[in-house]
Amino acid sequence: MTTPLERLRARTDALRAPLCLGIDPHPDDLPDGVPAGVDGIEAFARGLIEAAVGDAVAVKINVAFFEAFGAAGWAALERVRRDVPTDVLCILDAKRGDIGSTAERYAEGLFGHLEADAITLTPFLGEDAIEPFLAHPDRLVYVLARTSNPSGARFQDLRVNGQPVYLRVARWVAEAWPDGRVGLVVGATVPQQLAELREAVPGPGFLVPGVGAQGGDLAAGVAACDGAWAPGLVSVSRGIASASRGPDWRAAAAAAAGSLRRRMQEAVLHSVASAAQRPITEA
Amino acid sequence: MTTPLERLRARTDALRAPLCLGIDPHPDDLPDGVPAGVDGIEAFARGLIEAAVGDAVAVKINVAFFEAFGAAGWAALERVRRDVPTDVLCILDAKRGDIGSTAERYAEGLFGHLEADAITLTPFLGEDAIEPFLAHPDRLVYVLARTSNPSGARFQDLRVNGQPVYLRVARWVAEAWPDGRVGLVVGATVPQQLAELREAVPGPGFLVPGVGAQGGDLAAGVAACDGAWAPGLVSVSRGIASASRGPDWRAAAAAAAGSLRRRMQEAVLHSVASAAQRPITEA
Repeated sequence: MTTPLERLRARTDALRAPLCLGIDPHPDDLPDGVPAGVDGIEAFARGLIEAAVGDAVAVKINVAFFEAFGAAGWAALERVRRDVPTDVLCILDAKRGDIGSTAERYAEGLFGHLEADAITLTPFLGEDAIEPFLAHPDRLVYVLARTSNPSGARFQDLRVNGQPVYLRVARWVAEAWPDGRVGLVVGATVPQQLAELREAVPGPGFLVPGVGAQGGDLAAGVAACDGAWAPGLVSVSRGIASASRGPDWRAAAAAAAGSLRRRMQEAVLHSVASAAQRPITEA
Repeated sequence: MTTPLERLRARTDALRAPLCLGIDPHPDDLPDGVPAGVDGIEAFARGLIEAAVGDAVAVKINVAFFEAFGAAGWAALERVRRDVPTDVLCILDAKRGDIGSTAERYAEGLFGHLEADAITLTPFLGEDAIEPFLAHPDRLVYVLARTSNPSGARFQDLRVNGQPVYLRVARWVAEAWPDGRVGLVVGATVPQQLAELREAVPGPGFLVPGVGAQGGDLAAGVAACDGAWAPGLVSVSRGIASASRGPDWRAAAAAAAGSLRRRMQEAVLHSVASAAQRPITEA
């Protein structure tokens, strides 16, 4: 029985590209002929996983798109989660964050009941909101450092003694949990902060969303995503899910994932070559 | 058809005490004879509401304690929510926070599907994570400013140009949404910050958790909770739910809620009397 981190390493080595398949099925974005409502959302999500998971190191399922339908949506989420093969990291993108006794229950739901390999969390409540998740052996956590949305800057870019909050979050994570189980979420839409964070905290693996529809840069995401402690992930949702709205949506999603994987492989090679040519500098 | 804010005002006037009944049913805290598992959690939650709601202005249901059981837990949450009478404000304590397109789906689930009157949100992603909830007419939102947990200080108490982050959150909320639909969560465990926030932002209503098991001060909570735009709420969970673990737990919860309401009524009168005796000072 391998740990999620070991499986992440093994599959990243095998695929040579950090593609994370993002599942964020919005009712307005369903292909023609897929019925609106929870049944269509489930069919679309499961079809995307079946079509594209072969090129993906991880699948990141956004809980909100199922929670929108209440209990029926959660039942669908349970089935969708079971479609993720065991050698592929299953991340539940839930961005939870609450006081300790409550965080313990969220961890029970997401790690216990749904058996996620990894989840996303907000840092706003400090370590009380993180530790109960780490009480589940071997599971991974990604803490929001700098999100991909326009108003992410409002609090995350505030400077405290000259240091932005996103950097403070990242340094805190790297110091508090050096075992590699806690990574960071950093948007590809903010390449400058992404590079700054990668240099400042070389340890944690990054989960980088925002490539594609949100305008984030694929090469910048790939160059920055790996950490010394864990391989990184670049997540793409609409770039795969919206490849076609016609009856060929499954084939189009498969082709888009394959193309993204190849572009990421090239970016990895380019990134390695650039690093080799870079003069060695003092830390 | 009245709005949630109008109903909150009417019931606060009628009960003359800002008691919010917190529903956070942990499996370890169930009364003797109530079975562990989702059925017991539901029975306990519904029994507490039935026993104690007569003394409460609002019921705050913590989503995590149901989400812990997956789809079955959400089905229970849907039934528990319907037990809250229409003249009592139903707050879903979910602390969600995500980018705009995702926040829209969380709003659909919590305001649309579950028909909550109000919910709690984290400010970490800025206005993108708040606005989609306000697109639902008349519903109320409570944004975390200073949480009640020990590590709440880690990021919320950071000072930016001399101003703590919790104060910055509060001023932002008061300036951005002056219609009274956005309140603030401030823990009763930090009475100094509670008083500071009340003075700095007199508009928004406060939702004050942490009284009782977490050690927060009831009188300080009551004195600070009301805003100029909306009545405030002081939430008590274990102080009612854990009044007895014996077969008399329903009667004990009802008695505890009645006692808390009377203590809050006295604190309200004391707070009004203190304000009347206070010399008028310049703003």
